[in-house]
Amino acid sequence: MKTLKNIESSPTVKLDTNTFNSTDETSNMTDAKNHLPLTRANISKAHEIIKPYIHRTPLLTNTTLNTIASTPQSVSDLAGTPWEDSSTTTPANPKIRFWFKCENLQRIGAFKARGAFHALIRVIEEQGEGEVRRRGVVTHSSGNHAQALALAGKTLNIPTHIVMPSISTPSKIASTQSLGANVVFSGSTEPERTAVMKEIQQRTGAIFVPPYDHPDIILGQGTTGLEMEAQFEEAQQQQGKTLDAVFTPIGGGGLNAGVATWFSEPAKEGGKKTLVFGAEPSFEGADDCRRGLAAGQRVSAVSSKTIADGLRTPVGLNNWAVISDPSKVAGVYSVTDDQIKKAMKLVLERMKVVVEPSAVVGLAVCLFDEDFRRRVEEEGGDEGWDIGIVFSGGNTTVEAIAALFGAN
Amino acid sequence: MKTLKNIESSPTVKLDTNTFNSTDETSNMTDAKNHLPLTRANISKAHEIIKPYIHRTPLLTNTTLNTIASTPQSVSDLAGTPWEDSSTTTPANPKIRFWFKCENLQRIGAFKARGAFHALIRVIEEQGEGEVRRRGVVTHSSGNHAQALALAGKTLNIPTHIVMPSISTPSKIASTQSLGANVVFSGSTEPERTAVMKEIQQRTGAIFVPPYDHPDIILGQGTTGLEMEAQFEEAQQQQGKTLDAVFTPIGGGGLNAGVATWFSEPAKEGGKKTLVFGAEPSFEGADDCRRGLAAGQRVSAVSSKTIADGLRTPVGLNNWAVISDPSKVAGVYSVTDDQIKKAMKLVLERMKVVVEPSAVVGLAVCLFDEDFRRRVEEEGGDEGWDIGIVFSGGNTTVEAIAALFGAN
Repeated sequence: MKTLKNIESSPTVKLDTNTFNSTDETSNMTDAKNHLPLTRANISKAHEIIKPYIHRTPLLTNTTLNTIASTPQSVSDLAGTPWEDSSTTTPANPKIRFWFKCENLQRIGAFKARGAFHALIRVIEEQGEGEVRRRGVVTHSSGNHAQALALAGKTLNIPTHIVMPSISTPSKIASTQSLGANVVFSGSTEPERTAVMKEIQQRTGAIFVPPYDHPDIILGQGTTGLEMEAQFEEAQQQQGKTLDAVFTPIGGGGLNAGVATWFSEPAKEGGKKTLVFGAEPSFEGADDCRRGLAAGQRVSAVSSKTIADGLRTPVGLNNWAVISDPSKVAGVYSVTDDQIKKAMKLVLERMKVVVEPSAVVGLAVCLFDEDFRRRVEEEGGDEGWDIGIVFSGGNTTVEAIAALFGAN
Repeated sequence: MKTLKNIESSPTVKLDTNTFNSTDETSNMTDAKNHLPLTRANISKAHEIIKPYIHRTPLLTNTTLNTIASTPQSVSDLAGTPWEDSSTTTPANPKIRFWFKCENLQRIGAFKARGAFHALIRVIEEQGEGEVRRRGVVTHSSGNHAQALALAGKTLNIPTHIVMPSISTPSKIASTQSLGANVVFSGSTEPERTAVMKEIQQRTGAIFVPPYDHPDIILGQGTTGLEMEAQFEEAQQQQGKTLDAVFTPIGGGGLNAGVATWFSEPAKEGGKKTLVFGAEPSFEGADDCRRGLAAGQRVSAVSSKTIADGLRTPVGLNNWAVISDPSKVAGVYSVTDDQIKKAMKLVLERMKVVVEPSAVVGLAVCLFDEDFRRRVEEEGGDEGWDIGIVFSGGNTTVEAIAALFGAN
């Protein structure tokens, strides 16, 4: 296990203030005026900081999925979709080469480890190790952020309190506890959760590390983009060759905002920019970001039971500011739960890697959305596009897979 | 696609005869007197021959699985097993570090690609490209060998006939056909299958490429061991450091015999030898090899519906000669279908890679067999053992996973 010694000797940004202010109803981890700007340079610095603690996950290719994506959908594939009546046009015929960034193989099985380590180390830098160790940190999550913060706390020897709904999956509760976190149960509603968080903070002084809506989280998740750029260039053995596009899922939006920040400037001055896209489930309105962009206003509440359970959250404020900037995010698409299942089946059976439903929404857009596929055909031409897909996580169970694909 | 040009320029063994004899009831691929001896050197040559056509699959580690394997089983774990009455002894406490050879990520999703390419290229060397292309090759298989030979035939432009029971899974039939093979259906019994094979051979002159019981197949599968040895040494960054043990599944026995042939001599003169073990399912007597070793005589027929459907076959004659040699194979263990399911769940959920049930029998032995675990504790001591596990294949479907782990 790494100790804080490693951190202190690594090249980090030292801030000149060490203040702590409460914001809103919770003691937030950093004062707004100390926030690092969302830049490529700050993602590089975040990467230096978290590198000893995270995996450089592989960037995989798969010829079978390339072939499927580069084959036009049939008329029967398109029946029942918005494109079924294109009697005058033929289905799109794009040429696609995928590059899958396997954050399902990241520590705790999801990209969330990046943001959690970055945010926790930044708190320690700002407030001092002794202070943070004395007070501890707290968050609310029933999912991957819970385990990510628990792991970061265990690694850096900081007490961690995780508020989880008492109805959470027993396996998730057990994993979070096995990482040494103090799991505290709450009801499932927002007020119930907040009440428990407040109680913990009043009793312990614990500092809140939010799951997605914070610049330090965004910068941490953005290191995914940094690695993809480097790994693609290595694989091509051609300096300066860049991905044409990258897809990430959008739940709270931290991953998409981080990756979009990384690719907001070209790798080489005057070089080509990689376009960043987002993907969401459309089921019961979980495509809040896409709808918000269409309406010109962020949608602040979502209530959906989409199978992509990591993506049931509305986009956070900090993340919205990035994602709604068309110079940073080139478009957000949505897919049905049935399309998510089809994509997940292909990944498990053809690539032989386990992904959770949330991980494959970007792949599903590339396979099934005729508008996006037409864009690749038109802009990519004979050359086609190299498309990076972030597999955001792999935290599912064989029982959950059985529930999705069983006979019942 | 590679052409035969590549093959002919690669360093291969040229034989001085070019004869073809019929054996038994089928035209076999090589005359027995041309068989290459089962040696390390001939596996190295096989590797040179097939390298352009196969993946060098990764050798993965996983700390969670190491921790689970290095923790004693509890008394409740042992209830209902042969070790439940060990009231006088405590459960074994071995120290195990796993090295997973991911042949589930091999081409066509299984190690079978190695043997099929080697066998087909050897037939071409012996009988001439024109002759083999004119006659074609034939085999019977409802599983991974069917797809492996179909891929080799497609790659090397040789017509391939695959006899499959008409009750085979539609997805397997489709995959084999999509690789360009001529799939011919038969009944499910041995005589029905043989009749269809014979008819094809009489009509076309097709040469039989057996699924496992042939030296060229064994040498091809043995390249798995060659790669494991090299990859382990690379990962250790310590020349001459060897795995303590390697497990492979035993169905027909080609993989185990090949890997045991590779490790039958130490990597360095006077160095330590890697012990090779086999693993089988015990359900309905599918552990024919273990039973045969106990009785001192090969069991020649098996009828089992174990979930490890790749391991329902009795060990072939050539393979038995290797596996029953205690200087080559140090032991064969069996596990229950329930233990196979438990190991499969761990691999899918913790390692996030998809394996078929047959792939995890060796892992299941290391996790659950107290006799083997005691051996590691005693022989490995504080240092423990580095154990290579061959994940033989990943050809399953989400529906099959659902059937194994669903509520019903």
